[in-house]
Amino acid sequence: MEISELRVNGSRLRATIEELARIGGTAGGGMHRLALTEEDKQARDLFIRWLKELGLKISIDEMGNIFGERKGRSPQKPMVLSGSHLDTQPKGGRFDGILGVTGALEALRTIHENRIDTERTIAIVDWTDEEGTRFSPAMLGSGVWAGHFERDWAYSRVDLGATSFGEALERIGYKGKAPARKWPVHAYYEFHIEQGPVLEKMGKRIGVPKGILGITWFDVYVEGEGNQAGPTPMNARKDALVAAAEMILKVNNLPAKMGGDLVATVGEIQNAPNSRNIIPDRVRFTVDIRSWEDLLKNKAVEAIKNEFSQIGEKRGCPVRIEMIWDISHTEFDSHLVERVGKVASRLGYSSHPMVSGAGHDAAYVCRVAPTAMIFVPSIGGRSHVEVENTRWEDCEAGANVLLHCLFQSANE
Amino acid sequence: MEISELRVNGSRLRATIEELARIGGTAGGGMHRLALTEEDKQARDLFIRWLKELGLKISIDEMGNIFGERKGRSPQKPMVLSGSHLDTQPKGGRFDGILGVTGALEALRTIHENRIDTERTIAIVDWTDEEGTRFSPAMLGSGVWAGHFERDWAYSRVDLGATSFGEALERIGYKGKAPARKWPVHAYYEFHIEQGPVLEKMGKRIGVPKGILGITWFDVYVEGEGNQAGPTPMNARKDALVAAAEMILKVNNLPAKMGGDLVATVGEIQNAPNSRNIIPDRVRFTVDIRSWEDLLKNKAVEAIKNEFSQIGEKRGCPVRIEMIWDISHTEFDSHLVERVGKVASRLGYSSHPMVSGAGHDAAYVCRVAPTAMIFVPSIGGRSHVEVENTRWEDCEAGANVLLHCLFQSANE
Repeated sequence: MEISELRVNGSRLRATIEELARIGGTAGGGMHRLALTEEDKQARDLFIRWLKELGLKISIDEMGNIFGERKGRSPQKPMVLSGSHLDTQPKGGRFDGILGVTGALEALRTIHENRIDTERTIAIVDWTDEEGTRFSPAMLGSGVWAGHFERDWAYSRVDLGATSFGEALERIGYKGKAPARKWPVHAYYEFHIEQGPVLEKMGKRIGVPKGILGITWFDVYVEGEGNQAGPTPMNARKDALVAAAEMILKVNNLPAKMGGDLVATVGEIQNAPNSRNIIPDRVRFTVDIRSWEDLLKNKAVEAIKNEFSQIGEKRGCPVRIEMIWDISHTEFDSHLVERVGKVASRLGYSSHPMVSGAGHDAAYVCRVAPTAMIFVPSIGGRSHVEVENTRWEDCEAGANVLLHCLFQSANE
Repeated sequence: MEISELRVNGSRLRATIEELARIGGTAGGGMHRLALTEEDKQARDLFIRWLKELGLKISIDEMGNIFGERKGRSPQKPMVLSGSHLDTQPKGGRFDGILGVTGALEALRTIHENRIDTERTIAIVDWTDEEGTRFSPAMLGSGVWAGHFERDWAYSRVDLGATSFGEALERIGYKGKAPARKWPVHAYYEFHIEQGPVLEKMGKRIGVPKGILGITWFDVYVEGEGNQAGPTPMNARKDALVAAAEMILKVNNLPAKMGGDLVATVGEIQNAPNSRNIIPDRVRFTVDIRSWEDLLKNKAVEAIKNEFSQIGEKRGCPVRIEMIWDISHTEFDSHLVERVGKVASRLGYSSHPMVSGAGHDAAYVCRVAPTAMIFVPSIGGRSHVEVENTRWEDCEAGANVLLHCLFQSANE
């Protein structure tokens, strides 16, 4: 059989995703498998069983990143790497991250059962804590591996129950011995659902992102004056929630005001004392601002901070801002991006050049290795929710694109 | 000694408040003693010990309301009743409710130690669950006693941990045998901190409320569409938190729009999934609207509901409203209100006619018995917060007004 005729097994890929979805599956058909929980451990155990079935060389590094290598004819040459993450959002979906790991697994299974040799080693990876929900920021595993975060700083990140990343990693038995440190990688491919509505709207099957939007995350603390709701006249109030509400609307209006491809979101809010008849005196909320244009994003961050100060001053509510995360836009390797589009076209799949709005492990890997991503459509553009879904034939198509990209990179 | 020269013991009143403040006291100098908790039980135990020291006849009814009666010469005549509540808001203050109970206790102690007989029986009461924070709505104890709520409905109210009012009452051993049912009361006085800034601003010592504002409480549920914050374009969003923010600003603007003495507050908000990079899909928030003019309040409630529907429609976020509580304004007994003002004046205290913005047990008692309240200034107008405070000399002044109002009512 000609290698160019090789295709993955779509039903096996589906069965693999469905088996994984039983670990931390929710009643609503989604997934709840936060990083370094018992569910994450079970998913890792299953993943390693599958890697062993293929006879791969398994290694676990100090960050709990799991690698499985299939030796090439010239193992001294930099390898080709592919994967994503098995952790999920709270009440997230069955595809986010998981498709990239299982898609790479399916590609390796296809190569394995057809006894195909490659020039370079091909490896699969499950990066630890991509979502950053339990331990923030996101992408701690790939971030440390790529040298963006310090390992010990990552270990010290705590969840809401005051458990540290390091403790949690040890507790589930996945603090490996291998250094979490980049090594020469010839090409990194990450296969992922789009998590947005563009491909579906365009009627295209394969998304070919040229890179990832830059992201700024910060937290806003607004201080008011708590008082009984009844006897406090409107003009004597310092209502932290009213001030926050005005700020939230400003964040929502920011993209219209700044133009470009900016998106801005307030996803999280805490209010205190949060009692029906007490004027709120402490509000914390998060801001997420993204754009391909770093300059535009940074201008938007400055503009919104100014608006916050003005609102705070007007309403007698001091505002404090805490920066959480700031990453410039990521440009993927133009050669690999071109390859993804060409492979899709050769396999007969329609494709669409785009950018990724969501952050991915690819953002950090890209800094130390040539990188590209392969997207498939999200039904209704829905993601990070239980109803997140992608058609099985699209999963299969994406895995085929990955398979042939891996071949090309592994044989050059 | 002439009865008219009698005065309460201000230091004893202070010591009593301070002793109570040790039960559920917070590091911030406030109180955290929610209804029917272990702290509430301890406060009740202490209160009963004090009632026993005065030789009062103690009874506990099915709602856990505690009464202590000092027999008059004509015990068959309707009694005079005074009190308030010992439960507090979460991180509330040392005076709200407590001053009314301890002030009445101090009045009875003064009467007791001076061996004064009264024509009518004078009784003191601690009403159960005035705050309504753990079990809503507020004023469950006085509400059932006055016939406004059904006892079994009150029993069935649950807290956030799914414990029912009935279970909690039983657990702390305060489900009494006496029926929680009104009996003829000749006069009810409730002594309370103002919980607003008016008296302090006017430089007056005693507030003489003619009644209590009407209150409407309702909950608003806004439904959006959860999606990944990055890849979802602004125009494809149904952001429940943005819709809620617009609604919160409308609530805050409602008093300016409607005129009159209206106040409107959003005190509580919950957001889901409440994750930094997910567009919110479910928000619940509370609305509290108050006015002396029932018609104005009802018009305001209708107006804001319409605004909510329009915002929901515009933003693609369906809105559902759940009514929680609706009480018309309460007019106190004009004769008793006049008496409070006159007694204050005779005792040499400045006074100010006003309305109560906050709900009180007096609102329900007023429906079945002639009722009045006595207010003293709140420093900075602060209440329902840890820094809630009232000058000790004002506490003493209010207790003296209460003492002489009790005398007058008990001897007519």
